Amino acid sequence: MGQRSTEPPISWLMHAALSRPKLISLAAGFTDNASLPVAEARAALNQVLRSPKTGQPALQYGITAGDPALRKLTAEHLRKLDWEGTPCRRPQNQGRRHTVPPETYSPERLLITGGSQQLLYLTAEALCNEGDIVLVEDPTYFVFLGLLQSRGLRARAVRLERDGLDLAHLERVLQSLNRTGELRRVKLFYLVSYFQNPTGITTSFEKKRGLVKLLKKFERAAGHPIYLLEDAAYRELSFPGRADRQVGHTSPPSALAVPGAAERVIYAGTFSKPFATGVRVGYGILPEPLFTAVKHIKGNHDFGTSNLLQHLVARALASGIYEKHVARLQKRYAHKARVMKRAIEKHFPPAVEWWEPEGGLYFWARLPRNVPTGVKSKVFQAALKNDVLYVPGEICYADDPARRKPNHEMRISFGNASEKDIREGIKRLGKVLKKFV
Amino acid sequence: MGQRSTEPPISWLMHAALSRPKLISLAAGFTDNASLPVAEARAALNQVLRSPKTGQPALQYGITAGDPALRKLTAEHLRKLDWEGTPCRRPQNQGRRHTVPPETYSPERLLITGGSQQLLYLTAEALCNEGDIVLVEDPTYFVFLGLLQSRGLRARAVRLERDGLDLAHLERVLQSLNRTGELRRVKLFYLVSYFQNPTGITTSFEKKRGLVKLLKKFERAAGHPIYLLEDAAYRELSFPGRADRQVGHTSPPSALAVPGAAERVIYAGTFSKPFATGVRVGYGILPEPLFTAVKHIKGNHDFGTSNLLQHLVARALASGIYEKHVARLQKRYAHKARVMKRAIEKHFPPAVEWWEPEGGLYFWARLPRNVPTGVKSKVFQAALKNDVLYVPGEICYADDPARRKPNHEMRISFGNASEKDIREGIKRLGKVLKKFV
Repeated sequence: MGQRSTEPPISWLMHAALSRPKLISLAAGFTDNASLPVAEARAALNQVLRSPKTGQPALQYGITAGDPALRKLTAEHLRKLDWEGTPCRRPQNQGRRHTVPPETYSPERLLITGGSQQLLYLTAEALCNEGDIVLVEDPTYFVFLGLLQSRGLRARAVRLERDGLDLAHLERVLQSLNRTGELRRVKLFYLVSYFQNPTGITTSFEKKRGLVKLLKKFERAAGHPIYLLEDAAYRELSFPGRADRQVGHTSPPSALAVPGAAERVIYAGTFSKPFATGVRVGYGILPEPLFTAVKHIKGNHDFGTSNLLQHLVARALASGIYEKHVARLQKRYAHKARVMKRAIEKHFPPAVEWWEPEGGLYFWARLPRNVPTGVKSKVFQAALKNDVLYVPGEICYADDPARRKPNHEMRISFGNASEKDIREGIKRLGKVLKKFV
Repeated sequence: MGQRSTEPPISWLMHAALSRPKLISLAAGFTDNASLPVAEARAALNQVLRSPKTGQPALQYGITAGDPALRKLTAEHLRKLDWEGTPCRRPQNQGRRHTVPPETYSPERLLITGGSQQLLYLTAEALCNEGDIVLVEDPTYFVFLGLLQSRGLRARAVRLERDGLDLAHLERVLQSLNRTGELRRVKLFYLVSYFQNPTGITTSFEKKRGLVKLLKKFERAAGHPIYLLEDAAYRELSFPGRADRQVGHTSPPSALAVPGAAERVIYAGTFSKPFATGVRVGYGILPEPLFTAVKHIKGNHDFGTSNLLQHLVARALASGIYEKHVARLQKRYAHKARVMKRAIEKHFPPAVEWWEPEGGLYFWARLPRNVPTGVKSKVFQAALKNDVLYVPGEICYADDPARRKPNHEMRISFGNASEKDIREGIKRLGKVLKKFV
């Protein structure tokens, strides 16, 4: 076979879940069922299909780059996220407007994809040859690690701090790669910038600025551009701001807003998570010549995402349905996160460290270093026996020869489980943790 | 960049079309606008989204292989196409039922994809390494040729006869590859089996049987399986049978029905063309271990096709909406093909050979060998100047060192143009042809 193809860890977890009907899964990255916009999607689709004039274009082939109306709406949506602040205005951003060229948010460099996952794949396919190196956060999104592995790409991991990347460590990694002659294999930095999967960490704007600067600094030695792929999948799932919290703290602008960065930043966004995961519409902003290369590869993959889905999303955006839904969703997830927080406070032993997220779908918990959490560990097996499932931390770590892979953490999701199941699931997990910690 | 990415010919044609507003395009493979099922899709979606209970699963993530209900309906649909005959029964098939193992049509080996195009890509990605050889018909679907080129794969072309492949030529090609030691690079035969794009030719069941036999014969020398990828994209767009025509002549069973072939045949089907191209739901039947490999790659591409689209198609299939629509569409395309046939008879000079299709979307026309039709030719330029566009035959031919690429043919589509535009477009084209032929 041409491609390395191994069972991805997520399939294994899903099988485990299916074989135990009473199991509460705190593993899946699924979104909240009860708040899926059934009536809203129905209304928008009835609008799209109300007449042959509006309905026929939605049911016909489109162009590979995506529906022009949706591309325009999406580009404007993204520009607003970066410069006007959503959900709340960010006055400190004003005055920076003129430092970013207007073409940064041009619909001409915006590509609609089958979820943002497709953009991640297309980007890796366009940029990287077998054996190339992609820099990632430590830990990072495990599906992306699987993608790299399947394409014969290597990952090198950069440590995280509470406000994102450890830039000093990144510099040491780049220097070390330069010394070993491997810097010329480095094509890409993959950053999950908002409410990161799995840790919940958000990268500050200052760190993004420093990251772009460092990558540029090493380009000369690399002999080619080193791109920054910013995966903003969870960006709009921020919890509504509280009075005691710095306004906008949880949603800094994207790396596109870093002065001079637009030619090196690939931004991956999505409507799946903030609207409906069953709709699978994502998008990317890409600089040339990458935009054209990725568009051609998408032409070969599927020559364009379903027009019907694109018209649905365009209608939701244009009508305000989308914005209202996101506001409701943010409150809902903030509430579920509080439910999980209270349950964790009540049931987890004090030796387990954990972090309260300010958005996204995940808590990240760290056990003492001598207590492993992997699928073969006593903790995982006991959890499964007690009908509760989490994502073992170790699958979120790249194979990096420079460090031993940590295996004493867990990702716990409040996205899909009901409030009752969150309470019960954490109670079961707490019972297991008390036994082993 | 990791991947060869050149402007695909179809983009060029689309640009040409966009720059001339009065242009009649007989080039696009788009389907008929007026018969797109706007009311039917609306009704089906209203059913799917009528309540949270039915709507939530449609708006949630699914599993990578596809919605279990749709996989079951699709497998049964395909089994019926092969064994009961649609639109008309094929009594001559009875008695063959027991020669094909029942697992051939198992939902367990059926994968839902983003159009059948995605299955073509995933299959090439799973099976072929750079430099490998894929056997194709001469001519064949030009997007597939672009896909091969983008992945660094080579194509070798096998001649066509009126009932499909020239099997004697195929045998010579395989023998020649064996002599040069290149047989071990041959992984796949790509066959567009029904109303082929671009020629309209349908491969007979006997030819499929012969093809499977020949591929198996050379497997030993190749040292690995040689798979047959059957692309049946146009299968359901057959024209209703006429009394004077052999019943079922235009839709023989698929290669899955060849005894002993199920472990070597990959079947690519789609609901896009027979239902709505904007819906982009295709499917594949694949033998193990290929099914699992392709599913894992799809997991990395997009971890599953939109559930909303899948639920829409499942509803259309289960309710009978789909079947009714296909019957209407078959009549509609048969009518448009007749309109084009009459116009061709009236306007084309006698020196131009052409073939009347029995299904699909295309006429194929052949000019005298000394009159080129490529994008730089006088014929193409004059056609463009007269505001009519066709697909030059040469882009449908693989780069095969064994023969000179024919460049005196054209693909003419009646799919998207209105009846009036078909008449006017053929009139314009006839005028040009009379000038140069």
